[in-house]
Amino acid sequence: MKEYCGLIGIYDHEEAARLAYFGLYAQQHRGQESTGITTWDNGHMCEYRGMGLVPDVFTEEHLRDLTGTIAIGHVRYSTTGSSALRNAQPFMASHGQYRIAIAHNGNLVNAEELREKLELDGAIFQTTTDSEVFMHLIVRGLKEHSFEQSVENACREVRGAYSLVILVNDKLIALRDPHGIRPLALGRIGESLVVASETCAFDLLEAEFLRIIEPGEMVIIQGKAARSLRFAESRRKGQCIFELVYFARPDSCVFNENVYTCRKEMGRQLAAEAPVEADFIMPFPDSGIYCAVGFAQAAGLPYEPCMIRNHYVGRTFIQPTQGMRDFSVRVKINPVHEMIKGKRIVIVDDSIVRGTTIRTRVRELRKLGATEVHCRISCPPVKHPCFYGVDFSTASELLATKYPTVEEMARYLELDSLGFLSCEGLRRSVQKPDDYCMACFNGDYCVPLGKRLSCANCERLKK
Amino acid sequence: MKEYCGLIGIYDHEEAARLAYFGLYAQQHRGQESTGITTWDNGHMCEYRGMGLVPDVFTEEHLRDLTGTIAIGHVRYSTTGSSALRNAQPFMASHGQYRIAIAHNGNLVNAEELREKLELDGAIFQTTTDSEVFMHLIVRGLKEHSFEQSVENACREVRGAYSLVILVNDKLIALRDPHGIRPLALGRIGESLVVASETCAFDLLEAEFLRIIEPGEMVIIQGKAARSLRFAESRRKGQCIFELVYFARPDSCVFNENVYTCRKEMGRQLAAEAPVEADFIMPFPDSGIYCAVGFAQAAGLPYEPCMIRNHYVGRTFIQPTQGMRDFSVRVKINPVHEMIKGKRIVIVDDSIVRGTTIRTRVRELRKLGATEVHCRISCPPVKHPCFYGVDFSTASELLATKYPTVEEMARYLELDSLGFLSCEGLRRSVQKPDDYCMACFNGDYCVPLGKRLSCANCERLKK
Amino acid sequence: MKEYCGLIGIYDHEEAARLAYFGLYAQQHRGQESTGITTWDNGHMCEYRGMGLVPDVFTEEHLRDLTGTIAIGHVRYSTTGSSALRNAQPFMASHGQYRIAIAHNGNLVNAEELREKLELDGAIFQTTTDSEVFMHLIVRGLKEHSFEQSVENACREVRGAYSLVILVNDKLIALRDPHGIRPLALGRIGESLVVASETCAFDLLEAEFLRIIEPGEMVIIQGKAARSLRFAESRRKGQCIFELVYFARPDSCVFNENVYTCRKEMGRQLAAEAPVEADFIMPFPDSGIYCAVGFAQAAGLPYEPCMIRNHYVGRTFIQPTQGMRDFSVRVKINPVHEMIKGKRIVIVDDSIVRGTTIRTRVRELRKLGATEVHCRISCPPVKHPCFYGVDFSTASELLATKYPTVEEMARYLELDSLGFLSCEGLRRSVQKPDDYCMACFNGDYCVPLGKRLSCANCERLKK
Amino acid sequence: MKEYCGLIGIYDHEEAARLAYFGLYAQQHRGQESTGITTWDNGHMCEYRGMGLVPDVFTEEHLRDLTGTIAIGHVRYSTTGSSALRNAQPFMASHGQYRIAIAHNGNLVNAEELREKLELDGAIFQTTTDSEVFMHLIVRGLKEHSFEQSVENACREVRGAYSLVILVNDKLIALRDPHGIRPLALGRIGESLVVASETCAFDLLEAEFLRIIEPGEMVIIQGKAARSLRFAESRRKGQCIFELVYFARPDSCVFNENVYTCRKEMGRQLAAEAPVEADFIMPFPDSGIYCAVGFAQAAGLPYEPCMIRNHYVGRTFIQPTQGMRDFSVRVKINPVHEMIKGKRIVIVDDSIVRGTTIRTRVRELRKLGATEVHCRISCPPVKHPCFYGVDFSTASELLATKYPTVEEMARYLELDSLGFLSCEGLRRSVQKPDDYCMACFNGDYCVPLGKRLSCANCERLKK
Repeated sequence: MKEYCGLIGIYDHEEAARLAYFGLYAQQHRGQESTGITTWDNGHMCEYRGMGLVPDVFTEEHLRDLTGTIAIGHVRYSTTGSSALRNAQPFMASHGQYRIAIAHNGNLVNAEELREKLELDGAIFQTTTDSEVFMHLIVRGLKEHSFEQSVENACREVRGAYSLVILVNDKLIALRDPHGIRPLALGRIGESLVVASETCAFDLLEAEFLRIIEPGEMVIIQGKAARSLRFAESRRKGQCIFELVYFARPDSCVFNENVYTCRKEMGRQLAAEAPVEADFIMPFPDSGIYCAVGFAQAAGLPYEPCMIRNHYVGRTFIQPTQGMRDFSVRVKINPVHEMIKGKRIVIVDDSIVRGTTIRTRVRELRKLGATEVHCRISCPPVKHPCFYGVDFSTASELLATKYPTVEEMARYLELDSLGFLSCEGLRRSVQKPDDYCMACFNGDYCVPLGKRLSCANCERLKK
Repeated sequence: MKEYCGLIGIYDHEEAARLAYFGLYAQQHRGQESTGITTWDNGHMCEYRGMGLVPDVFTEEHLRDLTGTIAIGHVRYSTTGSSALRNAQPFMASHGQYRIAIAHNGNLVNAEELREKLELDGAIFQTTTDSEVFMHLIVRGLKEHSFEQSVENACREVRGAYSLVILVNDKLIALRDPHGIRPLALGRIGESLVVASETCAFDLLEAEFLRIIEPGEMVIIQGKAARSLRFAESRRKGQCIFELVYFARPDSCVFNENVYTCRKEMGRQLAAEAPVEADFIMPFPDSGIYCAVGFAQAAGLPYEPCMIRNHYVGRTFIQPTQGMRDFSVRVKINPVHEMIKGKRIVIVDDSIVRGTTIRTRVRELRKLGATEVHCRISCPPVKHPCFYGVDFSTASELLATKYPTVEEMARYLELDSLGFLSCEGLRRSVQKPDDYCMACFNGDYCVPLGKRLSCANCERLKK
Repeated sequence: MKEYCGLIGIYDHEEAARLAYFGLYAQQHRGQESTGITTWDNGHMCEYRGMGLVPDVFTEEHLRDLTGTIAIGHVRYSTTGSSALRNAQPFMASHGQYRIAIAHNGNLVNAEELREKLELDGAIFQTTTDSEVFMHLIVRGLKEHSFEQSVENACREVRGAYSLVILVNDKLIALRDPHGIRPLALGRIGESLVVASETCAFDLLEAEFLRIIEPGEMVIIQGKAARSLRFAESRRKGQCIFELVYFARPDSCVFNENVYTCRKEMGRQLAAEAPVEADFIMPFPDSGIYCAVGFAQAAGLPYEPCMIRNHYVGRTFIQPTQGMRDFSVRVKINPVHEMIKGKRIVIVDDSIVRGTTIRTRVRELRKLGATEVHCRISCPPVKHPCFYGVDFSTASELLATKYPTVEEMARYLELDSLGFLSCEGLRRSVQKPDDYCMACFNGDYCVPLGKRLSCANCERLKK
Repeated sequence: MKEYCGLIGIYDHEEAARLAYFGLYAQQHRGQESTGITTWDNGHMCEYRGMGLVPDVFTEEHLRDLTGTIAIGHVRYSTTGSSALRNAQPFMASHGQYRIAIAHNGNLVNAEELREKLELDGAIFQTTTDSEVFMHLIVRGLKEHSFEQSVENACREVRGAYSLVILVNDKLIALRDPHGIRPLALGRIGESLVVASETCAFDLLEAEFLRIIEPGEMVIIQGKAARSLRFAESRRKGQCIFELVYFARPDSCVFNENVYTCRKEMGRQLAAEAPVEADFIMPFPDSGIYCAVGFAQAAGLPYEPCMIRNHYVGRTFIQPTQGMRDFSVRVKINPVHEMIKGKRIVIVDDSIVRGTTIRTRVRELRKLGATEVHCRISCPPVKHPCFYGVDFSTASELLATKYPTVEEMARYLELDSLGFLSCEGLRRSVQKPDDYCMACFNGDYCVPLGKRLSCANCERLKK
């Protein structure tokens, strides 16, 4: 499962680039492939982008070169291909007196149509990002309209998920699409305004969290003033529930929900929906920890974090020997052997996509002497692709595609029992259940997909 | 608190260096400053050593150059100084037909005297490691004795802590000092024998844990045979209890104790000795997790892991801005704000050395609205220096030196209450309490210190 | 004096990228700031670009990733600014089914006007290169015209110097502007066609030099066929004489002239125009070697290469101490002290731009005991800026601006005598004197400059 | 042919390490494999050593860490093996109150015997350098003697070539072996004394060249005083003539000879001994330039430097394609094609070792149309190994071994004629012919070789 992107914007701060750096650092979990920062310094733009993690890409020298008091930044999830550096954001270009940089989180569903249309009109494309599509759409409006109006018009042409942070000369614009699919929040450090995908960035920066930016809202910051305008009618909200289930950091607040509390509540609901008799609850680090705590508390079972994470994993290492089977599974977490033998164990995790890792783990636990191995998952099975930015495996690789029933899945995973939280249980775990998109579970897409996209699983079912 | 060193040895395996690499990788927590691997390939020795973490130091190419079927390796804790690479181990030298490499974990108390004596006899020193002292002592015996006999004689001259893995031509020797201060275990992969400081290395290598090497035991592996001999009378055992409290990985077995279970038991004992009324137990990641789980279970209080660790910390990053106070504390772990407000919280951790970090955290929790903040520590206050390899802060910086009573400490740390596990409680948490050194808590040193070393705190008390 | 750029193109060769790499390596003297290679592999384009020298930028792995049998490459001269990587060429973009990469050598005089016009038409710019201007101009024609026709039309809109190598899908296009200001040559390796700025690239690749590409000629290579078309009427030729004086490698053939022979002939003409009585001729390495050899032969004076070049210079090194005066001059070349004392010396070099280095050298020679120091330069004084790609110092820094007469220059440089080759002498040194641009010497620009550009020195003279 | 090592020593200068750096930089041609600097700062020693060229190994930060006012440094020639960093010098060790660093240029002929003897006495060896042998010999004397006396005694035990620069606490010692095989010179920067292998280091440092250090002389610098003592009786001098023929920079003075003038004189003598009728003289860059100039002047033939050197060679580059034959020859120098055709050419170079490169070049010249190709070499054929530090190819690979007569060599090299300077001619080219070792040409070794070393060629002749 690939991560989303993360955004940061800093306005009117002496050390704008440095704050952007730490804002990205705090949101590193949202994208590890590439990162970039663009600043505006009194008439010209500076930028630096690179492949890799934030602390590996930027040096002290880079930050010194990123002068100016306004900065935007981006972390990007993993893709493939040698030209990946081109696609690192923010995407920067100049047009007339405008110097423009765009950072985008989300995925457009009509990007391909828009590209074709723009190319017919003479546009050339240097990247495969949606940011470049936005750039062209905005610039084409500038002959007749103001910059803000051109952004509004561009937003009317695109469909899909987009939280945007735009730097144009000495102005910073932040907005969320009308469905509010991806998060974006507004904060303050002294007199300086800050925007970030997640509030954990504010905590690191010691910024105060003011409020979330609303779906269809555009915030324009310039000079000492910030103003807000609503560029789209209110539509059906479709905030991505997966942010709460998996992506966001547990110490963040996204969509006005506290992630830690939500996850614990999912565990509690799961314990009620799918109870199990066992010796203890064991989380899979680190994703399953918080729902496991909630599950254990609700079920009155001991919580035993006896899968130990290797803290140095994450760095690349050399290839193991031929004989070392399941190495990539073992190198990350290792069970405490003594705790497993003769025990009935409930594994709690946040999601299953392909199921290969969990199957290996279950076998290992049995080999170590577990008498029963159960599994509980804090969301429903993923059955439909996401077209708004979550890169699940292809439909055919999804466990729920290969094994349509829970029983079949349990058998494949060699479990004594398997339970998923229901859509209803998930809805009960959040404060405003109607404001979320659960299309990956139920196929109900908030944005019409158009002719070119469709869910292979739904197609299959139709036949 | 500085970490110990970690040792690995692989005998008679096609991919000896690669296995050593992964054995060190699994034991990375024992030393992050430098690492090295030495191999024996049919008549000559190969080595590579470097500053930094195992995956950063070794490349695929290095491993390919480390040919041969016998390998030993070392990870070393952090020191300072530009000449640190010199001190990276294994320490290698040649003498006559012998090619010798020594990897050492521990600290000798009479190293200085031995160096002076050796220098009078014409020795030159290239490093400041005890390994070089061992090397000289062993080599001086070779004129009259066999290699093994020379090692035995060398062991009779040194005093202090030493687990050694020695590679000499096609032979591998592993031994522990007569007090058994540092751990060392013996395992097997198929027909190949393996030694490691901790069994978590065996788990990653899919090696079977055979047994620990006994205090005063030397295991000599050559060809298809391994033999064991006892080079020292049985003395008072002094296994380092801090391995169980703090250093070892929770999924390891050291000194025949399971670390995870010990830590949970320390938490249980602590709950009994120092109960507290509160809303929940909160561990400090990651060191306090296991005693916190034990404490919560024994106390019947909810366990809430609501201090969130940033998974990307560990990498170096650039300096924060001037305005970012307590940055280094915040960048590592961040509390879930919503969980703190209006709560009575018990922090559980494994040890306090200087207390500065915990004091910052306590203040932060109060700022976020905690009504009470208590702290429970799963070992007694550290009052005495360790001369066997644990690098606590200097005596004058120890919290227990500055604030001799628990009340004074609690006041300094701005806590509502503070409790430490007693020496007795600690003894109750392990299987063979008499086999451990607790000198850092009670000043009772298992190895006589000699004239040059003394505990500043004890001296102070005498006056 | 900054260098030009260098171009390479390889068509239909199994190891196209590798040949491009070596073709750039041989032309490294034409640009040291950045380099890039773009290849076409059966439906998609690959590229890699980086800052620095060819062997430092590309690794074996990069070349492996640059798959395909067609490649173009570029080396670029030094500019400043952190965004320099953006400007590294080839410039690549996609438009409809076209994948296009452009490598450009030269300088357009109407680039600014074209950018403004294109922006009014909706274009956005990511770089400050002329290649991007070409890209937009070409793409705008594609709605109605073929690719070749669009290139022709683009060439009609631009004015100035351009040798271009264009890769578009499986086609390679090479062309020179109607004045032929920059060189470009056609060669062959077996069945594969090759283009390069200088023939020294052919020598390294063991390619056969077929012919130069003519001014106003476009060569289109596709499949097994290559065809040539003339896209512009024959105009006044304006080949850059500075290629022969300074830029090109002496083992190259450019503009159908052999550079080595030309330079020797310049030295011969100079000896005739500005004879001098002295003990020996001393070249400044390495630029002055060939005219010095010609001068010495014509003058019948000994040739003594007693200024010794440090072969390791070129690599960056750390700052010298405060006390080390004229360090950057001394570190590059060092005179043989014994040869200087009591001698009358004639320094021969190819050009003087600012004169600071030569002045330092003259002083040094006098300090070492030279009785007379004369200087002879194998071209006329540089008095006018070049708008076609040679980055002389700004007009006000030119020696010939500050000191309009040769006598004044000689006095400033502390020389006993100074002599320049005349324009007529320079013309006598080449085969087709009417085909060259000598605007930097005589202000006679072959391409009209338009309203925005002018020569500050000419303006000054007018007043 | 491998290069020698280069030494530098700086005493009592604020920026000692920085001067050492530039002193090594100027002597980089004497060793490219590894380099190191050791300094003494008021009670402790600092060092940094690394693999590669001086500017690649040292950063500004390293130099800042190398504090203190005394520094010694070393550049080392190329060897093989992954443990090469161990062998980088200066070799540093501590013994009692002494901190000692030794930098050595040359080769001992009895190193092996001394190692065995030292090992019997308990010594361990960490490197394969002669510096470590010196270190042990010196240290063993310290129990009874002063440091200087111990150095003297050590010099009495060793046989062979050694120029040494020793740093011991706040004292710097520089000495040459009794035969004076390797050079070492004394200079001054203001009040600070400097030693270096070649005077070109003094030129870069703006130091004044005072005098050479004499064979068998030891200079001891401490505080404000320097004193000189003669530690060995005057013996037959054996200064290495190859320094003048090949190794030293032409702008250096070594053994009180000016290298440039010597080389020109060798060319003159060669022209007299081996005249040839031809169109011009062509040097092989850069080694043959100076003798070619002398040859051309004496012979009255034109000097044409029409083999062009690629200035960027020296950096590593990726592998050429399979089809690119003789690539490594072509990438370094390229002939000017137009100059070759129809010409009778005399190649002048300083030496031939294996002859493979020259043979390739001759073929290439013939392919380009040369009608005759002659070759003249400014020293006699190398027939005997050097045991004092010059690493010629093994005897069996030497051209003169395979083809004992000049005629056979010429035939193998496909030359029209071949001529070598005679030993007598070489003697006529220097001021004090009796002070030189020419063993590699005539087998007359100045230091007895002992039982273990012998010249394979001489042995062969005996049989």
